[in-house]
Amino acid sequence: MQAPVNVGIIGVGRIGKIHSENIVSSVPNCRLKAIADVNLTPAIEAWAKNLGVASIGRDPAALLADPDISAVLICSSTDTHADFVVLAARAGKHIFCEKPVDLTVAKVRAALDAVKQAGVKLQVGFNRRFDHNFRRVRELVENGSVGTPHLIKISSRDPAPPPAEYVAVSGGIFLDMTVHDFDMARFQSGSEVEEVYALGAVLIDEAIGKAGDVDTAIVTLRFENGALAVIDNSRRAAYGYDQRVEVFGSKGAAAAENDAPCTVKLSCEAGVIGDKPFYFFLERYKESFVVEMRAFIEAIALNQPTLVTGEDGMHDLRVGLAAKLSLAERRPVKLSEIPLK
Amino acid sequence: MQAPVNVGIIGVGRIGKIHSENIVSSVPNCRLKAIADVNLTPAIEAWAKNLGVASIGRDPAALLADPDISAVLICSSTDTHADFVVLAARAGKHIFCEKPVDLTVAKVRAALDAVKQAGVKLQVGFNRRFDHNFRRVRELVENGSVGTPHLIKISSRDPAPPPAEYVAVSGGIFLDMTVHDFDMARFQSGSEVEEVYALGAVLIDEAIGKAGDVDTAIVTLRFENGALAVIDNSRRAAYGYDQRVEVFGSKGAAAAENDAPCTVKLSCEAGVIGDKPFYFFLERYKESFVVEMRAFIEAIALNQPTLVTGEDGMHDLRVGLAAKLSLAERRPVKLSEIPLK
Amino acid sequence: MQAPVNVGIIGVGRIGKIHSENIVSSVPNCRLKAIADVNLTPAIEAWAKNLGVASIGRDPAALLADPDISAVLICSSTDTHADFVVLAARAGKHIFCEKPVDLTVAKVRAALDAVKQAGVKLQVGFNRRFDHNFRRVRELVENGSVGTPHLIKISSRDPAPPPAEYVAVSGGIFLDMTVHDFDMARFQSGSEVEEVYALGAVLIDEAIGKAGDVDTAIVTLRFENGALAVIDNSRRAAYGYDQRVEVFGSKGAAAAENDAPCTVKLSCEAGVIGDKPFYFFLERYKESFVVEMRAFIEAIALNQPTLVTGEDGMHDLRVGLAAKLSLAERRPVKLSEIPLK
Amino acid sequence: MQAPVNVGIIGVGRIGKIHSENIVSSVPNCRLKAIADVNLTPAIEAWAKNLGVASIGRDPAALLADPDISAVLICSSTDTHADFVVLAARAGKHIFCEKPVDLTVAKVRAALDAVKQAGVKLQVGFNRRFDHNFRRVRELVENGSVGTPHLIKISSRDPAPPPAEYVAVSGGIFLDMTVHDFDMARFQSGSEVEEVYALGAVLIDEAIGKAGDVDTAIVTLRFENGALAVIDNSRRAAYGYDQRVEVFGSKGAAAAENDAPCTVKLSCEAGVIGDKPFYFFLERYKESFVVEMRAFIEAIALNQPTLVTGEDGMHDLRVGLAAKLSLAERRPVKLSEIPLK
Repeated sequence: MQAPVNVGIIGVGRIGKIHSENIVSSVPNCRLKAIADVNLTPAIEAWAKNLGVASIGRDPAALLADPDISAVLICSSTDTHADFVVLAARAGKHIFCEKPVDLTVAKVRAALDAVKQAGVKLQVGFNRRFDHNFRRVRELVENGSVGTPHLIKISSRDPAPPPAEYVAVSGGIFLDMTVHDFDMARFQSGSEVEEVYALGAVLIDEAIGKAGDVDTAIVTLRFENGALAVIDNSRRAAYGYDQRVEVFGSKGAAAAENDAPCTVKLSCEAGVIGDKPFYFFLERYKESFVVEMRAFIEAIALNQPTLVTGEDGMHDLRVGLAAKLSLAERRPVKLSEIPLK
Repeated sequence: MQAPVNVGIIGVGRIGKIHSENIVSSVPNCRLKAIADVNLTPAIEAWAKNLGVASIGRDPAALLADPDISAVLICSSTDTHADFVVLAARAGKHIFCEKPVDLTVAKVRAALDAVKQAGVKLQVGFNRRFDHNFRRVRELVENGSVGTPHLIKISSRDPAPPPAEYVAVSGGIFLDMTVHDFDMARFQSGSEVEEVYALGAVLIDEAIGKAGDVDTAIVTLRFENGALAVIDNSRRAAYGYDQRVEVFGSKGAAAAENDAPCTVKLSCEAGVIGDKPFYFFLERYKESFVVEMRAFIEAIALNQPTLVTGEDGMHDLRVGLAAKLSLAERRPVKLSEIPLK
Repeated sequence: MQAPVNVGIIGVGRIGKIHSENIVSSVPNCRLKAIADVNLTPAIEAWAKNLGVASIGRDPAALLADPDISAVLICSSTDTHADFVVLAARAGKHIFCEKPVDLTVAKVRAALDAVKQAGVKLQVGFNRRFDHNFRRVRELVENGSVGTPHLIKISSRDPAPPPAEYVAVSGGIFLDMTVHDFDMARFQSGSEVEEVYALGAVLIDEAIGKAGDVDTAIVTLRFENGALAVIDNSRRAAYGYDQRVEVFGSKGAAAAENDAPCTVKLSCEAGVIGDKPFYFFLERYKESFVVEMRAFIEAIALNQPTLVTGEDGMHDLRVGLAAKLSLAERRPVKLSEIPLK
Repeated sequence: MQAPVNVGIIGVGRIGKIHSENIVSSVPNCRLKAIADVNLTPAIEAWAKNLGVASIGRDPAALLADPDISAVLICSSTDTHADFVVLAARAGKHIFCEKPVDLTVAKVRAALDAVKQAGVKLQVGFNRRFDHNFRRVRELVENGSVGTPHLIKISSRDPAPPPAEYVAVSGGIFLDMTVHDFDMARFQSGSEVEEVYALGAVLIDEAIGKAGDVDTAIVTLRFENGALAVIDNSRRAAYGYDQRVEVFGSKGAAAAENDAPCTVKLSCEAGVIGDKPFYFFLERYKESFVVEMRAFIEAIALNQPTLVTGEDGMHDLRVGLAAKLSLAERRPVKLSEIPLK
């Protein structure tokens, strides 16, 4: 048995906490040695102590300087991701970085260059690839059951819109929300996007429109291998988090329906009533966060490539930027129009 | 192409009308030549003329005397079934008789003897054997997909209880309602019942209890081939007509879910809401009445045995009588305790 | 009770036969008096006699001249539709015309003008509006359960591609196949299309590509009321006829799943296996052909507008032409770019 | 915040290990202080150290003597349960005892007497009451959605039969397998069993028959409140672990379908294929083991009654003994025939 991978986490907000707890309870061959959070509070400190974290502090630099730590999780605010990737790479740490690495191609490129130069591993936090339903769809594509993919359909709808201020800094719906779906479409197709067309509307919250974004969208993609894809998004589904993926190919179709808290159906005067889907991503993708972390640790332990690379993050970003351009100019945009660096 | 089978119908109440219309619109090689109804009204006369029925009258004897008619449907009141079977057999007509032939073994035996002596065909109206869902279950048993049957489960619940006066003359729940399920269990098992145990309760309508019957029941069956079966009945399901059949065997299980008017699901604040099952047997088994009539005409045209014989009706009756005895004496009853004639 | 509507049918190929049989067996207040088919064969003649059709001939003009006939069904080859509409209108007959009325805006406009001038009714054969599933979706939109429609999703996939020669004369996938989906999207949205973008690929049959068409497509629509829609099409689904519609709105989503021949599921070593959808439109939309005909006869009897008007057919055609233009020029096309006459 | 409950576990075979890991990772306010296993191996020792267990030994007496420990989990072999309950009660520990407490009424009664005298809490390991699906069914009964329960249906089928030697010591199918279903039926009905009738057959493994047991069974129950119930069991379902519960009442029915590893359906030439249910209880009831342990710790922390009491275990045992008697004597058996002590 190998020595466990010592992990440090930069930023323990909501997602950082989830990764911390998963590492402690559910990821083998791995130890959470340190956390660093610029906004360290007594509550966070107590929580971390309870988890058995040896080193609790505010300074990411100190964490990165710890020679015991071989892997770093970057879970700080989005605008700091790229810089921390560079610093962690230079410190020789393997890196798990929450998505997005950055909202600009240039900063992502710089970060990826640093990673490449350092020869460390980088996994980007597109957790949905590790979801049990979507992995099964992918398996059915890979094992030939679906045949050659022709059409990919993704429905991705949130239960409630974010505040308008959020979309102003998030890069907008295509970079904070659809980017997951772009990654999923690429994952399922086994190919790269060639052309993007985005249709958007403000149907839910006018404040989002005033902030320059849309809250309802349909995006179509043409892949290099000929497959076509369509993603539909809404910022507010009255029934909860709607997350479905379908791959249709020459031999059949594999479709993932929503997961729900239970299978019970009530047959009554009013109809046959089943559960709504899980409310949001913390419930729906709970297990996927565990699986992605296991995969990251395993990639380190077995010295294998990570399953979501920095180049994946780069591609997803560029598709998102192409969608933004398409919406602005009301025309299909070739991915080649978006700079590579 | 053969000459069409000329059919006469004795009794055109609800079910007689359904068979009439099906014969005219949907059964090939068949002509509805005559109807006889002791309660003939101008409305029935108009309805029959519109269907193109050549001979419309009150007298069953006249209908049975018509040499053009080769097949008779007996759809009159239950207490007349057995006598008409005898008369029709003696007149050399093939016979479709609505269920039950009679509520006593002796009268059914006499009717079957007459049929045998006359060498005519007899099909009893257990229409559910012709239902698309239940036939599929049977196919999966017959083609070996289910393996050897071990357990048969039937849920059979009506949307609303009959008037208490009805159960007084119908023979009670086991003879008017469960008898369909006994027939289904025998059909699916491919074997005969050896032992019956019935559990009953009055939970819906006290008037039914006062009339000496139960409105809620569970009946278990042991078959000669070793398979076990269970039927659950209720006289009132708040959500409509619940009709499910499952056969579990050594290789798997085939289960028929309810049919509903449409496949639409509404996802909303209140849940994911689908349609209730069809309200009652006229909607649910609509197609099965057509298919059973086609099968009857085909059996005549091709001179083959009918798919639900008089002996089937006899067996189903005896199982029903065994269930009544079991309920009364609170013990399992062997089918051999019920006389054969 | 009113006198029944006397109907004549021009053209009794596959769909003409279906309408004929439905009228005879399942449409009240209606009599099939005459058929005219330029390719009349003895077999057709025998079939028509058996249905009780009084007048059987080759000449549409004779049928249109019959003063007893008040309604005409045009089921001849597509290229003759518009001319027959004009002739029937001039003869003062109410008209049911199979889709499409024509492949050109000019001929459709001329036909609609003739209908208007004659003051007769015209219903175009977009039968899917009468499908039980899709009507239920529409009801849930109309009764407010779905709220304001935001997204409409239609999957529409055929079980097998037509011969390449067919697509050469049919106007191509957008005019022979997607046109049904355009009509459905308009029906569900309660609004008119403003802009169309079409993405297409040849992934199934190269001969279709050589004939200048695509066999796989995604089309997005923007409606005047702000709703967005997406249709995905394939000429070949390995599992049969895939016909799903979903309307997502401010309060929820109504989604129609495929219909299948039965509800039975086989649980076995290989999984839990259910039925494939109905194989093709004759099975899937069987009942809708009856319902659309009842609606047509009722519109005449009650002197009400038909539920699918000539203007509906015109709109659907123009959306199809816009999709063709979009595919050819690889850009979104405004409906206003397509001439109105 | 209260001091955490210190827990000791006697017996760390399969189920003891599961509880241990759940306590460490997923049960708040609780600390796993000690384990005692008569078959302690180096592997177990390593596993326990890794979990941070302070005291690891072979001697249950030492564990029971530890004044720091306030709650004990009895996960040793079945024949030792009752004795350890008595010892733990005398030591003043709260007790979680795996089912069954014992196979004889007398020993269970003695154990419950000791618990009562000591004034400690006892929870018996009927984990299925804590399953998300079955709790939801119960909620729908309790909140009135189902109305008054009339019929309870439980399908409970294992993926593979145990060795014949096991059934010889387990008490047989009704005491090792159906006992869970008896507990579930009681839980859902909110009433107590009055009468039991059991039907059994040997259809899977003759060795089980030779060991004096059956492998296929249907058991019916009559409850004191008038509700009827039926349980069907098989020792081998080819498609995995089949665990369904339905409660039908005056207002509707709540039915829990099986859980499966994913929601993906493959539509292909062979049909529409979904996942099999989870293979067995470790997967299917994984979460329920966590929830039952949380409930136990909470009952201690809040000084509330446990949710599955010793009397529940006693009732379930007596129903199982009644079922055995019914099968042996081929007659319905009143629960009152089974001694209370």
